[in-house]
Amino acid sequence: MTDDEMHAPLIGLPGSRARLNTPVLVIDRPALERNIARMAGFSAEHGLKLRPHAKTHKSADIARMQLAAGAVGICCAKLGEAEALADAGVTRGLHITSPVVSAPAIARLAALNARAQDLMLVVDHPDNAAALGVACTQPLRVLIDVDPGIRRTGVASAAAAVALLAAIRAQPMLRYCGVQYYCGMQQHIAGFADRAAAMADRADYLRGVIAALSQADGAPEIVSGGGTGTHRIDATLGLFTELQVGSYVFMDSQYAACDLTEGEPPFETALMVDSRVVSANAQGMATLDAGYKAFATDAEPPRVLTGAPAGSQYFFMGDEHGALLVPDGRVPGLAEVVTLAAPHCDPTVNLYDCYHVVEGDVLRGIWPVTARGRSR
Amino acid sequence: MTDDEMHAPLIGLPGSRARLNTPVLVIDRPALERNIARMAGFSAEHGLKLRPHAKTHKSADIARMQLAAGAVGICCAKLGEAEALADAGVTRGLHITSPVVSAPAIARLAALNARAQDLMLVVDHPDNAAALGVACTQPLRVLIDVDPGIRRTGVASAAAAVALLAAIRAQPMLRYCGVQYYCGMQQHIAGFADRAAAMADRADYLRGVIAALSQADGAPEIVSGGGTGTHRIDATLGLFTELQVGSYVFMDSQYAACDLTEGEPPFETALMVDSRVVSANAQGMATLDAGYKAFATDAEPPRVLTGAPAGSQYFFMGDEHGALLVPDGRVPGLAEVVTLAAPHCDPTVNLYDCYHVVEGDVLRGIWPVTARGRSR
Repeated sequence: MTDDEMHAPLIGLPGSRARLNTPVLVIDRPALERNIARMAGFSAEHGLKLRPHAKTHKSADIARMQLAAGAVGICCAKLGEAEALADAGVTRGLHITSPVVSAPAIARLAALNARAQDLMLVVDHPDNAAALGVACTQPLRVLIDVDPGIRRTGVASAAAAVALLAAIRAQPMLRYCGVQYYCGMQQHIAGFADRAAAMADRADYLRGVIAALSQADGAPEIVSGGGTGTHRIDATLGLFTELQVGSYVFMDSQYAACDLTEGEPPFETALMVDSRVVSANAQGMATLDAGYKAFATDAEPPRVLTGAPAGSQYFFMGDEHGALLVPDGRVPGLAEVVTLAAPHCDPTVNLYDCYHVVEGDVLRGIWPVTARGRSR
Repeated sequence: MTDDEMHAPLIGLPGSRARLNTPVLVIDRPALERNIARMAGFSAEHGLKLRPHAKTHKSADIARMQLAAGAVGICCAKLGEAEALADAGVTRGLHITSPVVSAPAIARLAALNARAQDLMLVVDHPDNAAALGVACTQPLRVLIDVDPGIRRTGVASAAAAVALLAAIRAQPMLRYCGVQYYCGMQQHIAGFADRAAAMADRADYLRGVIAALSQADGAPEIVSGGGTGTHRIDATLGLFTELQVGSYVFMDSQYAACDLTEGEPPFETALMVDSRVVSANAQGMATLDAGYKAFATDAEPPRVLTGAPAGSQYFFMGDEHGALLVPDGRVPGLAEVVTLAAPHCDPTVNLYDCYHVVEGDVLRGIWPVTARGRSR
């Protein structure tokens, strides 16, 4: 029995959250629901489709909530993520946002295409278009990935986009549907006006690529992109037909530091980690049972939410532990629970097998992290 | 079917390593075997017992290899890690190296104690000794954890150690066996002589704690500690009875940068990640399919081993991708394999469900990462 399964009998019991073994990844369900509803409302208001990115949550349960709220499909970062969601019954409108290039992966993609509805993926190289065209026995929808200047994936110029369009059209099994354009570097610019100015420049570039494709009789039906950081700006550009937002469901600390909503009700922190004090022998500090294996380490350290005096800070102390520094007030004692906001959500979620879904102090459910580790 | 299971038919086939879906966590089996034999030989030569730390590998298969090579038991960082190993049949000489304090965890510990042979764990607070004593229905072996100055876990003074000894003795079910002393901060000092000087100072402190315990009729039968970085120094101090070394099985980049063996044959890099090029549209670089979800990010980025020209470097590009910068020479093309050394091994291993065990270019086996994610 895993320690997640051990918790199942606690579901619904008053005070059950405090009885969980720690560290535990916790979703505030009402906050999650409000975030999902808010973004669904925003997209509908602006006449945009919504294809939320599962790379944040990796969860079939949350994908189903997003589809029920009106999403046209679900984005996946990798083929393995899409396979995992499909295995869990989420097959509608899956879109894979990075190229699938190796022979074994293309064989898997062809198999997924045969059982998913309207599967779509990006292509950024004519050789890859040819390989996909040969492998697929059923029509496959593709978007041309356009590099917004990150040099991560995507074609590097309008001319390359047009050449790729021709390569796609040379493959009878490929269905050209449009373009993808994800401006990752603009997402975390703190000020709204600065972010809008940066996006205006990137929008001009995309407009040029679309014009070139249109001249080659390839006007895109779908322009997919946008992110939580820029969604209000993306919606006003008149370019995107759908948003790929992901982080809004949980709102990690990186986004919480940005002005995203121009004064509208903000997205709420819905993802946290409950940890416990395991050692308390030093002045003004306690050791928590959560370290590199409990939190992503690529961004800032996690923020202390509750269970410790205001001003308390967390510092990593290796794989399994963290230091809680308490500048003033009572240091929490052995076994007391301290709750921290998840730092960068996507890789934090990837460390856990399950979400523990709570309302206040009551455990309401345990949801698998369906696509945890499915990075291939 | 997971993507690991998908690989099982490839076991033993010539060239099978190149046919694996990527990113994939790879063990060089001959190098692993040499590392295990080398440390077993070193300990025997120096009259020390070996209780290797499973926090590095989290694998029942590797634990069994270490026990077969003469280890007296296996260290675990957390209770959940010990439970996972015990579930997989590794029950001999398990020792939990950080305190177990909460009520639900202590109940689990008592259950594990009833089914494991000679289970042992650290205690660093009298309240915890009392709680353990009340919960256990069978004798439980405990070590007093002595803080070497990290302020992570452990008693903070000789007086505190003596007070804890009394608290342990007040509990009929607790069996005092000695002390644990892990000098984490000294492990990565690059020069051998500097490391030895730092350890000499820490050894003096431990000698004082042991003297105080001995005066209280608590001379330790077991003094457990040491690490891969200091093992040659630890062995000469005349204090330790057993070594808790972990990283030597794989040798991550942090340790590879240190002089560990005074000119003796070094431990070898036995853990790596095979990745593939998924995009190659920018000058002098390619995008690999391995990012924050494929490598630990708490230390330096992974080092490029093979598949790219000498001098090539890896940079993180988000959750799923990395940049391969090639200063000179041919940039690897789409779908080509690039092999990288695992950066900090312990949290890197924690990202994967399985090891793919190779000899040269042949896949020889797939081993589960038995205790992945078992951080509670």
